[in-house]
Amino acid sequence: MSNFGFTDLRLVNPYDVAFQEARSAVRSKYILDQATVHQSISEAVAGCTLVVGSTAVGHRDLHLPLYPLEAAAARIRPSLDGEVPIALLFGSEKFGLSNEDMSHCHWLLRIPTRSEHGSMNLGQAVAICLYELRRSEERADLQYPPPQGADAAELERFTEALLAILSESGYVNERTAESTQLKLRRLVRRLGLNAGDMETWHGILRQIGWKVRGGK
Amino acid sequence: MSNFGFTDLRLVNPYDVAFQEARSAVRSKYILDQATVHQSISEAVAGCTLVVGSTAVGHRDLHLPLYPLEAAAARIRPSLDGEVPIALLFGSEKFGLSNEDMSHCHWLLRIPTRSEHGSMNLGQAVAICLYELRRSEERADLQYPPPQGADAAELERFTEALLAILSESGYVNERTAESTQLKLRRLVRRLGLNAGDMETWHGILRQIGWKVRGGK
Repeated sequence: MSNFGFTDLRLVNPYDVAFQEARSAVRSKYILDQATVHQSISEAVAGCTLVVGSTAVGHRDLHLPLYPLEAAAARIRPSLDGEVPIALLFGSEKFGLSNEDMSHCHWLLRIPTRSEHGSMNLGQAVAICLYELRRSEERADLQYPPPQGADAAELERFTEALLAILSESGYVNERTAESTQLKLRRLVRRLGLNAGDMETWHGILRQIGWKVRGGK
Repeated sequence: MSNFGFTDLRLVNPYDVAFQEARSAVRSKYILDQATVHQSISEAVAGCTLVVGSTAVGHRDLHLPLYPLEAAAARIRPSLDGEVPIALLFGSEKFGLSNEDMSHCHWLLRIPTRSEHGSMNLGQAVAICLYELRRSEERADLQYPPPQGADAAELERFTEALLAILSESGYVNERTAESTQLKLRRLVRRLGLNAGDMETWHGILRQIGWKVRGGK
């Protein structure tokens, strides 16, 4: 919850030992300290205008609309961080939500998992739901730092330095020197060299060049 | 891993006690049984054509391209389940990946979390990454079962039954009966009644109607 900026934790009849142990988690202490404990689901969700239950069950007898998490999050996201609280309701790790629990829900969501492996670890299920709520389509196109490729002049300088070393090393046959140069130029362009690496590469080639020329 | 259909777990110098304990997880036993243990990262990622490291660190001195998970998954997804294995590399819960570890990576990904809360629980981080890799844009539009609204005739029958009860109950003023009917019709349309619920609702209204007419 803390990782994704959610703070309002409401517990219904928690297992006290586990709850007290969890309070020792250092960085999320502020969430657990202000968590409220309730006798019933209806008490816990009071004040929420939307109650969404999470279920691992794929079958259809739930009497409630069931959305895969992606679709559920798309429905919830516009109201996120608004003035009106929305409840995500999770059942116990062992039993999930009962039919009685689910009757407090407006609809249900399910994390799409392999059906062969029914249930999920509760902490992981919560983490995935909160991640999906905060997920941004924009970020799917984002990357940082933007990779800046080496410019053409640098690539050519690299190619020539390499060619000089290869000539010195006897790799280049005089008869095919020209086609070797073309081959090499294409090879170097396929490397995907980054601008930031070029100084290092030139240093490497300088050093090798010095060595193959017999230390001159 | 089992929830999202990943099976190839490779461990580098695992803490033996925790590893043996984890093997007791009933449903994922097949993954842990075939997990391989390695002395080094380079040994573990041998055969992989792409090695992506996961880091919680937001700073820029990583010397590697850093993508937010959404963008990272978009890059990986096309190659998923192909013939060429791709490695997702996670560090220890406590320390994450070292610079040495990261030097084995082609690039890095980061789960977008609140920067105030640096690190994530390892199991939750893995679950979120694997969820994102399997996530489907298509499912964002999906819902099942498709909600089938009550048709207009059913809604009108409901409106009339309700109006009859309200008339019988003295709710409807003769002078404003017509506008009350309009108001009621709009009220009922705003309910979002589902086709599957209409029989129950008609039963409820029949019963109330019987009662308000004095059991006739």
